[in-house]
Amino acid sequence: MPSNESVSLSDRSTVFHSWSAQGALAPLAIASGLGSRVWDFDGKEYLDFSSQLVNVNIGHQHPKVVAAIQEQAALLTTVAPAHANATRAEAARLILDRAPEVFEKVFFTNGGADANENAIRMARLYTGRDKVISHYRSYHGNTGAAIVATGDWRRMPNEYARGHVHVFGPYLYRSEFWASTPEEESARALRHLERVIQSEGPDTVAAILIETIPGTAGILVPPPGYLKGVRELADRYGIVLILDEVMAGFARTGQWFAFDAFDVVPDLITFAKGVNSGYVPVGGVLISGPIAHHFDERVFPGGLTYSGHPLAAASIVATLHAMADEGVVENARTIGESVIGPTLARLASTHEVIGEVRGTGVFWAVELVADRASREPLDAATMGRLKSSLLSAGLLPFIAENRIHIVPPAVITPAEADHGLALLDEALSVLR
Amino acid sequence: MPSNESVSLSDRSTVFHSWSAQGALAPLAIASGLGSRVWDFDGKEYLDFSSQLVNVNIGHQHPKVVAAIQEQAALLTTVAPAHANATRAEAARLILDRAPEVFEKVFFTNGGADANENAIRMARLYTGRDKVISHYRSYHGNTGAAIVATGDWRRMPNEYARGHVHVFGPYLYRSEFWASTPEEESARALRHLERVIQSEGPDTVAAILIETIPGTAGILVPPPGYLKGVRELADRYGIVLILDEVMAGFARTGQWFAFDAFDVVPDLITFAKGVNSGYVPVGGVLISGPIAHHFDERVFPGGLTYSGHPLAAASIVATLHAMADEGVVENARTIGESVIGPTLARLASTHEVIGEVRGTGVFWAVELVADRASREPLDAATMGRLKSSLLSAGLLPFIAENRIHIVPPAVITPAEADHGLALLDEALSVLR
Ligand SMILES: Cc1ncc(COP(=O)(O)O)c(C=O)c1O
Ligand SMILES: Cc1ncc(COP(=O)(O)O)c(C=O)c1O
Repeated sequence: MPSNESVSLSDRSTVFHSWSAQGALAPLAIASGLGSRVWDFDGKEYLDFSSQLVNVNIGHQHPKVVAAIQEQAALLTTVAPAHANATRAEAARLILDRAPEVFEKVFFTNGGADANENAIRMARLYTGRDKVISHYRSYHGNTGAAIVATGDWRRMPNEYARGHVHVFGPYLYRSEFWASTPEEESARALRHLERVIQSEGPDTVAAILIETIPGTAGILVPPPGYLKGVRELADRYGIVLILDEVMAGFARTGQWFAFDAFDVVPDLITFAKGVNSGYVPVGGVLISGPIAHHFDERVFPGGLTYSGHPLAAASIVATLHAMADEGVVENARTIGESVIGPTLARLASTHEVIGEVRGTGVFWAVELVADRASREPLDAATMGRLKSSLLSAGLLPFIAENRIHIVPPAVITPAEADHGLALLDEALSVLR
Repeated sequence: MPSNESVSLSDRSTVFHSWSAQGALAPLAIASGLGSRVWDFDGKEYLDFSSQLVNVNIGHQHPKVVAAIQEQAALLTTVAPAHANATRAEAARLILDRAPEVFEKVFFTNGGADANENAIRMARLYTGRDKVISHYRSYHGNTGAAIVATGDWRRMPNEYARGHVHVFGPYLYRSEFWASTPEEESARALRHLERVIQSEGPDTVAAILIETIPGTAGILVPPPGYLKGVRELADRYGIVLILDEVMAGFARTGQWFAFDAFDVVPDLITFAKGVNSGYVPVGGVLISGPIAHHFDERVFPGGLTYSGHPLAAASIVATLHAMADEGVVENARTIGESVIGPTLARLASTHEVIGEVRGTGVFWAVELVADRASREPLDAATMGRLKSSLLSAGLLPFIAENRIHIVPPAVITPAEADHGLALLDEALSVLR
């Protein structure tokens, strides 16, 4: 068994890393995992409160998913997308079974970015319009159109696509609309969205693309009425509504789809991550009937070598069966309602540094502030110290700007969740 | 075991297909494969002269690659890109070992499209320039920038990215330059490229992105001096040269990299397909030292959830070892030189319908024409009949427009190649 140091070193010297300056990397070496835990090469155990990149919803190394991958590998690892393959059709069927009736087909991709690329393509061709409206506080992937749909800083060095417009979404804690209640925030965000649609020209807008619950941007659970209002605006102006469920879907929020908890049905759904916990790279688009049939006689001008990959399909089939059999969606909901939610509320009442807590299921954000009144975000250096102390205590955290995202696997037990939150409590206590 | 009909039907009713009108699909059902053969659900055997989408270079179900996937699945299927993982670093090292010395790092993606997206991103940030020049006869992937870099018809419904310029590449059989010798074609194509660079403004051009041997466009082996000339132009004008080796790399041409047979070293190399035969979705960018180090202190603004996926990495490690141990690159070269090349030359001398034959390794195109003098492409209906007759004879062909691409796995035996080419001979004989 190699050591942490040797693995980290050989990684740094040959592997170019995402979203980073390469000079100062010190990647944590991970050797293995099981359920909500991972181990490094020295045998140190970490409770995974990150689910890696919020993808390991079913936990690490689920034996049934591992077995399904191994069996499919023995049978047929790869096949061209044009050919039919039994496992792929089964995966599509199981995904469709969990979606509203209007959804008829699945287009498989390799991840979340190309799912959004293809959803945008479908919306443009279906409407004959160009523009895509998305939120400033959002992330949709790193490829040409997906990165320009993205609202956050990652868009700025990459603005080589046209036809993208951004709006502010609801975020009451840091309202862009001078609102003071959730209802007001929702109504004003909708008014802003409608004014932008009108000002861009409704006939030029192909799609509204939003994360059902913006994830990386801070787990911004939409206030009452917002998503329903967006649906109404999309209908009023003939715009395709794409809900990005890449991070929020498949048990993360305590629902199969995050939008199941809201009064809304989109026209296209993009997914990745939770659908197979990322055991094999895969993503896709769920397509509602009218859009799917638009391409019955017209060629759909998009595609990729690994669309509907058998190994990915096998991992989806096993994941969705295991999730259903083991009540993983319900577990995520219960853990959110009876452990994470109440405990974070308690922590917020004892730690001045917590500005706001919000979330659902196993999808929570703890926003840390230097000052409760001004809501000034906690500084990066202190966040760095917090991260180090959590790591040394054996908790693998997900940290984004001044926030800790509490995003463990959806299979986490109450005892594990309690333990992780106790470590957070302790780390916050010694922070200053 | 399900039947062909049931698998094809359930596929058609739930799976949305790449680059197709969905109404008239009749996907061939594939149940299993081994080496250069695949079987449908009724047990009918096909010799795979397509390598699926020209990716199964090591053949179907190579036992060592299958075993490596199974072992890695048991150990650790997935990990966030920010963490280090022993298998990933090993995969990077093995890829770098096969590339010229100047290459220092590997950025892993999920496939060929996002490899090109990230190579373009690196070139733009490294040069501080915008434009990307690529060939009209090319395919680079289906995402935002990759699809607009693409020159063929697939670009046209998808032109939402800016900063892309296209040139004609060399293709003597259908010269855009009124050339009559390979040398003339090469010189005139270079002159055209330089005139476009000058007319766009050299200071605006970030990258020249070309397939070393354009694949889908017709396996257009570049004439003597062309790639060397492109390299010189790139150097003269401070432009990054990206060679897309997604289809041509890893044994396809009888070399590790297709450019090994030419006098050229690029600045960035994109790869996918052959690197692991597509057993797990993966692609990437090989980065030369100066570009890699440009991001030592600057953040690289690109990334994806499954960058450096352990399962993909394990399949790369096993594939590259097996290719080396079993002389797969040499086999491809020998098959090309002593079986496919000579046999196709013989077929060309006996079948009027063959306009031109070109290629190397296991990467050949047979261009079919209605008339040898005018070089008018053979019509689509006749190509359709040819495809059907090859399929019923048990040959899985790769057909593109008026061409048959002879692109079997690089592990094909002389006897198998002979057999497949004999089936082609027969099908051509009864064509009219
Ligand atoms: C909401 C959302 N959409 C899209 C993506 C992009 O997915 P991928 O990294 O698989 O391209 C992400 C990734 O974090 C995401 O969170
Ligand atoms: C030369 C070339 N580049 C890029 C791609 C895109 O690769 P992918 O389909 O994995 O996105 C292909 C696919 O056929 C290709 O042939």
